Amino acid sequence: MRARAYANLLAFLRAACTHASHLGRELPLVPFYVREHAVGWLRPSFVEELRRWPHVFEISASWVALQANPDTVTGRTQVLGEVTRILANEGQIRGWRDELVSISHHYAAPELLRIERAATRHFGMVAYGAHLNGYVRRKGMAHAWISRRATSKAIDPGKLDNLVGGRIAAGSTVDETIRKEAWEEAGIAPALLEDLNCIGAIRVEYTVPEGLHREVLFVHDLWLPEDFTPRNQDGEVGEIQCFKFEEVLDAVLCGDFSLDAGAVMIDGMIRQGIPLPEDTQYLDLVRLLKP
Amino acid sequence: MRARAYANLLAFLRAACTHASHLGRELPLVPFYVREHAVGWLRPSFVEELRRWPHVFEISASWVALQANPDTVTGRTQVLGEVTRILANEGQIRGWRDELVSISHHYAAPELLRIERAATRHFGMVAYGAHLNGYVRRKGMAHAWISRRATSKAIDPGKLDNLVGGRIAAGSTVDETIRKEAWEEAGIAPALLEDLNCIGAIRVEYTVPEGLHREVLFVHDLWLPEDFTPRNQDGEVGEIQCFKFEEVLDAVLCGDFSLDAGAVMIDGMIRQGIPLPEDTQYLDLVRLLKP
Repeated sequence: MRARAYANLLAFLRAACTHASHLGRELPLVPFYVREHAVGWLRPSFVEELRRWPHVFEISASWVALQANPDTVTGRTQVLGEVTRILANEGQIRGWRDELVSISHHYAAPELLRIERAATRHFGMVAYGAHLNGYVRRKGMAHAWISRRATSKAIDPGKLDNLVGGRIAAGSTVDETIRKEAWEEAGIAPALLEDLNCIGAIRVEYTVPEGLHREVLFVHDLWLPEDFTPRNQDGEVGEIQCFKFEEVLDAVLCGDFSLDAGAVMIDGMIRQGIPLPEDTQYLDLVRLLKP
Repeated sequence: MRARAYANLLAFLRAACTHASHLGRELPLVPFYVREHAVGWLRPSFVEELRRWPHVFEISASWVALQANPDTVTGRTQVLGEVTRILANEGQIRGWRDELVSISHHYAAPELLRIERAATRHFGMVAYGAHLNGYVRRKGMAHAWISRRATSKAIDPGKLDNLVGGRIAAGSTVDETIRKEAWEEAGIAPALLEDLNCIGAIRVEYTVPEGLHREVLFVHDLWLPEDFTPRNQDGEVGEIQCFKFEEVLDAVLCGDFSLDAGAVMIDGMIRQGIPLPEDTQYLDLVRLLKP
C-alpha cells in the first residue's frame, strides 16, 4: 500500500474546500472590492505590488477597491487587462491563456468585469468550471474513466483529473462548456450526451503559491457504453485510464488527484453509494461539498 | 393559475431549511444537553412543563440538561420514556407511534439515547429519514410519481409527499429503511431496487406548533419502468399520481407539498437539470440543500 497524503476523505475535503491548506500562506488576506462587492481576496505582498497603480487601486489598511475610469464593465476590464498584462510580462502571472472569464457578485448575476483566466488566483476571485465524472460498467463492475493532466500544463501538471473539466469562458453556459470540453478532452460525441445535465455544484477553496484558488464547479455524471474508449483531442490530457472505484478513492487519498478534481471525484463517489451513509464522516463530506 | 404560497423555490427552501418559518414561534429556543452535546432545542413553555421532573432535568436560565440515573443509554431512554408517556397521556404529545428513534451527537455516532418518534419535535431533536423520488418516462417525457399523505396522518394530512419516505428506526440502516418503505408505501419490489443507493442528504428545519422539526433526509432517485404503477400497501398513502416536472414545481410553490417532501423534490429536480445553473437562485438552492 502506498503512503497516503491524507488520513481520510474528510481530511482531503478540508484541504480542498475550506481554505485549510497551507502553502507558505500569508494571513490575513485582504478583500478586493468592485463597487460594493468583495469579489476577491489578496495576499498582502500582492497588495504591495498593486501600489504601483495608485490611479487603479484604492488601498486602505484592511481592503483594496478598484477605481476604474469609467467605472463600467468595459472600463474595469480594460484597466485590469493593462495591469495583469504587465504582471504577466514580468513573470508574476504565469500561464497566460488569452481567455477572459466573467466576474460577478454571484454566478449569473450581472457582470462586473472580465479578467484573464490566469490572474484569478492572484486576485482570489471565484472562477467557474464544468466537470464531468465518466463511468463505465465492465463485466458488471463499476469503473471510472480518469484523465491524467499533460505534463506541459501550467497548473497541476501530471496530476489525475476528472474525465472532462474546463473553465467556463465569459459568455458561455455550463451546458455549452461541458459539451465542448467533452469532445475536446475525451472525444465524447453529442449522441452520448443526450440525457446529460448539470446535477449540482461544489466549491473548492485552497491556497496556492500565487494566491487563493476559489472555484465553483458544476458537476455532471455520465455512464458511457462499455465499448466506448475516451480519446483526448486537444493534447491537454496525457492519458485516460479506467479505475475501479476503490482505486479512485485510493488515488485521492494518496494525493494523486489535484484538489479540485479529487473533490469532484468524492462528490461523484457519494452519488454512487460510496461511502455509505453510516460512515461517521458521511454528512460532513456532503456538507463540505456545497457551493 | 393558482395562488402561490411561496414566491419562488428559494423562498420555499428558506422556509423549509433555515428556521425561517414562523408559526406562533417562541424565541429564543433553549438548548437541551445530554452530557456535553446539545442534542435538542426547547420552547420556553415546554421547559416550564419539564420543571415537573426536577430529578430528570437540570434547568438553568439558558440551558436544560438531562440528568438520568444511571447516566447510560438505557437509563436516559427509560427516564425520557416515562416523561414522554405522561405527556402523551395528557395529550401534549400527539401521534404516539410506539417507535423509538436513535439520538446521537452525529448520525451514526455512538447512541446517546432512544426516544419515542412523536416526541422529537417537542425536544427539537434531529430525526433521520430516508426518502425516494420516483420517476418515469412516459411517451419520452419525464414525470415524477407523487404520493398524497392519508388524511388520517397526524402530521401533514392530505399534503403531497415523495413517492417513498420514512423515518429511520433505531437500529436500522438507511438502505434497510428505504427498501422496506419502498415496498410498504409504493409496492416497489426488490428487483426494481437493484442499483438503488443513497446519493446524498439534505436537512430541513422549521418551526411547528409543538416545537422544532429538524430532520436529515437521506435522498434516493429511482427511474421506474413505464409499465409499473406504484401501489400503496400499508394504508398510509391516500393516492399516488403521475406529475409532469413543471407540475411538481407548481405544486411546491402553491404549498401543496409538506416542507420536508418539497425540499426533497427540489433536490431531485436539480439533479434532473431543472432549474438551470444560469438561474440566479441556483447556487443558493444547492447551498440550502445540505445536511
